[in-house]
Amino acid sequence: MRQVATTGDLHIGNVRPMGGAATSVTVRGGLVAAFGGAAPEGLETVDGGGAILIPGLVEAHTHLDKTLIGMDWYRNEVGPRLIDKIENERAQKRLLGIEPARQSARQALLSVALGSTHIRSHVDVDTEIGLAGIEGVLETRERYRGIVDIEIVAFPQSGMLIRQGTVELMEQALKLGAQVVGGLDPSAIDRDPKGHLDVVFGLAERYGRPVDIHLHETAELGAFSMELIIERTKALGMQGKVTVSHAFCLGMTDQDYVASLIDQLAEARVHILTTAPAFKSAPPVKRLVDAGVVVGAGSDGVRDTWGPYGNADMLERAVFVGLRNNFRRDDEVALALDVCTHGGARMMELEGYGLEPGCKADLVLLEGETLAEAIVSRRKRKFVVKTGRIVARDGEALLKAP
Amino acid sequence: MRQVATTGDLHIGNVRPMGGAATSVTVRGGLVAAFGGAAPEGLETVDGGGAILIPGLVEAHTHLDKTLIGMDWYRNEVGPRLIDKIENERAQKRLLGIEPARQSARQALLSVALGSTHIRSHVDVDTEIGLAGIEGVLETRERYRGIVDIEIVAFPQSGMLIRQGTVELMEQALKLGAQVVGGLDPSAIDRDPKGHLDVVFGLAERYGRPVDIHLHETAELGAFSMELIIERTKALGMQGKVTVSHAFCLGMTDQDYVASLIDQLAEARVHILTTAPAFKSAPPVKRLVDAGVVVGAGSDGVRDTWGPYGNADMLERAVFVGLRNNFRRDDEVALALDVCTHGGARMMELEGYGLEPGCKADLVLLEGETLAEAIVSRRKRKFVVKTGRIVARDGEALLKAP
Ligand SMILES: [Zn+2]
Ligand SMILES: [Zn+2]
Repeated sequence: MRQVATTGDLHIGNVRPMGGAATSVTVRGGLVAAFGGAAPEGLETVDGGGAILIPGLVEAHTHLDKTLIGMDWYRNEVGPRLIDKIENERAQKRLLGIEPARQSARQALLSVALGSTHIRSHVDVDTEIGLAGIEGVLETRERYRGIVDIEIVAFPQSGMLIRQGTVELMEQALKLGAQVVGGLDPSAIDRDPKGHLDVVFGLAERYGRPVDIHLHETAELGAFSMELIIERTKALGMQGKVTVSHAFCLGMTDQDYVASLIDQLAEARVHILTTAPAFKSAPPVKRLVDAGVVVGAGSDGVRDTWGPYGNADMLERAVFVGLRNNFRRDDEVALALDVCTHGGARMMELEGYGLEPGCKADLVLLEGETLAEAIVSRRKRKFVVKTGRIVARDGEALLKAP
Repeated sequence: MRQVATTGDLHIGNVRPMGGAATSVTVRGGLVAAFGGAAPEGLETVDGGGAILIPGLVEAHTHLDKTLIGMDWYRNEVGPRLIDKIENERAQKRLLGIEPARQSARQALLSVALGSTHIRSHVDVDTEIGLAGIEGVLETRERYRGIVDIEIVAFPQSGMLIRQGTVELMEQALKLGAQVVGGLDPSAIDRDPKGHLDVVFGLAERYGRPVDIHLHETAELGAFSMELIIERTKALGMQGKVTVSHAFCLGMTDQDYVASLIDQLAEARVHILTTAPAFKSAPPVKRLVDAGVVVGAGSDGVRDTWGPYGNADMLERAVFVGLRNNFRRDDEVALALDVCTHGGARMMELEGYGLEPGCKADLVLLEGETLAEAIVSRRKRKFVVKTGRIVARDGEALLKAP
């Protein structure tokens, strides 16, 4: 195992911030200190080789606790309904021995290798697994502190009101260290939108936590749930603290209704998280951003019992955002990356995020001719820097996963 | 430059056909001779290392003549309409110096490195470039004969009836060596669906050639064009010879109409080519295949003035087919690969395609645990074999592009 440097002081020569003119960057005490100039005496120095410098990628929606990375290939023969996938997963956790601490560590280090410096992970809370998922990801969060920042959402994947005892577990998860209150399809899964949201927002108010709700409900049903979420956000003064994940309903046909929802989201400062799915209706990223709505992106499940595809690469996710939204111009491709960096950072209210002097030195060096070229080519990340320390090099995290 | 072996005789030990049990494969005279057994005396032998053996990937729809691979990055600032892209491209061909022979060679060898053993390329024919695109790709087709099979579609990208002189150029392209008659949006571009299709099918009948028509027209308009194509296919006895590329209309909302179109396609044996686009409505692959319609897949434009994304990787395209069609089960992921191999091969009427003894030895070795795992992981291709000769190794074509 290679040693991770621990000074948080660093000079990187010959980098091009966001693909612009070549310069150097000096990091002091984990913060971006200055651009330009030669390496100060005695500072660890690396050669950027003309690479493009971007802020750390932000994986703003994933499920660290239940990835199958590094385990035997799981042969997926699951039925087509949402409930098939939920029930199969609960069973497989036991059958396959999906160990949350080990699995979350594997995915977290994969994310580090791919340039993500921040992760928001929803973590299952249910009456079968109890808080084992939360405890496992908490262990990973502490273990890799300084390498990657992990934020935990207590997530009632199997439903909350329909499974007695889940609400109490959600509360315990928050006490244990989960930072965000999760939720899931208030109508389609819990069959009681008012009841579901009363509990979610009640916990958020009582513990002073942000909210992030999985909303797969499509069209008018999803729009109804979204309006209920917006109403509660405003009533509780939680503007800027609430995220709706997936929000497939924003891709519905009724464009007048979509326009109204976008206005309401902007006014209540409710954020949208998209995975840019190819198969489902999806939030129109540019319209949302133009209206002032914060949009982040995430991988969602990475190689799990739900499906085989994810790979935790947020540069690939930027390509998916681009493909899904028909972004072809260079400025549009840059917007797709912005969603996967600044968008997620604003959604998660990260402090000191960015490339400006004074920001935390969470940095990624991409090889590429231009910013757009680097994004679409998705090469191995040359360097990943977390608060001034190199944590990955040439596509490999310096720490090895368990 | 490394030497390309020219015997067409080869023994590959320790391979797993389609991810099944380990065996060996012996190739004689460019054909698959037998599975199992030790290396025959005196035969060139390579170790498959337990890799998964699949037939050559089939890039069934691309545009070799106008990729920008290997050229300076093109900063895309093109307007949003289809006609903006068409007109910009015609202008850029001259401004940027997009040389069809050189550019098609670059993409063809990239395809080889990525495991494609067959390519169908639409090649622009218009009154500005004339036949220069056709001549350039013909040069590449001859130059790499034995490395990759290239089929050329004469493609009226800028419209046919709306630009006088184009029909004559289309005919000359066929005489020069283009094998397939192309077409494009009979209503939306040429403003005369009957006239457009009369010319396309007239040329096909006169020269005894297959047809492949770009159909971007959506919903009812595209469905109307598709029905006109089906009518002509049956009237001329061209069942099995006609492909509709893109066919976005098959993703339309009216499911009864879609079902009727699928029945008509199956009856007339008209094939569908999809790129599995995330942004547009798209053909439902499983429904089509279940109805007996042949479905192939392709990259479409690879890094050109239309957009920056394509990379000629047909294994990634299989992932896109899977994502677009919500394929999650292992058998569904295998279907996505089937579209990118056997589907394209049937669409292009390739003779002797497949892994059975007697088939042409067009083979790809993929590293992976299972077939689905190898597909979603998209690792470098270990070996690519064309009619028994190794043409790429560890992700690199043995010939270098110009
Ligand atoms: Zn999720
Ligand atoms: Zn095309």
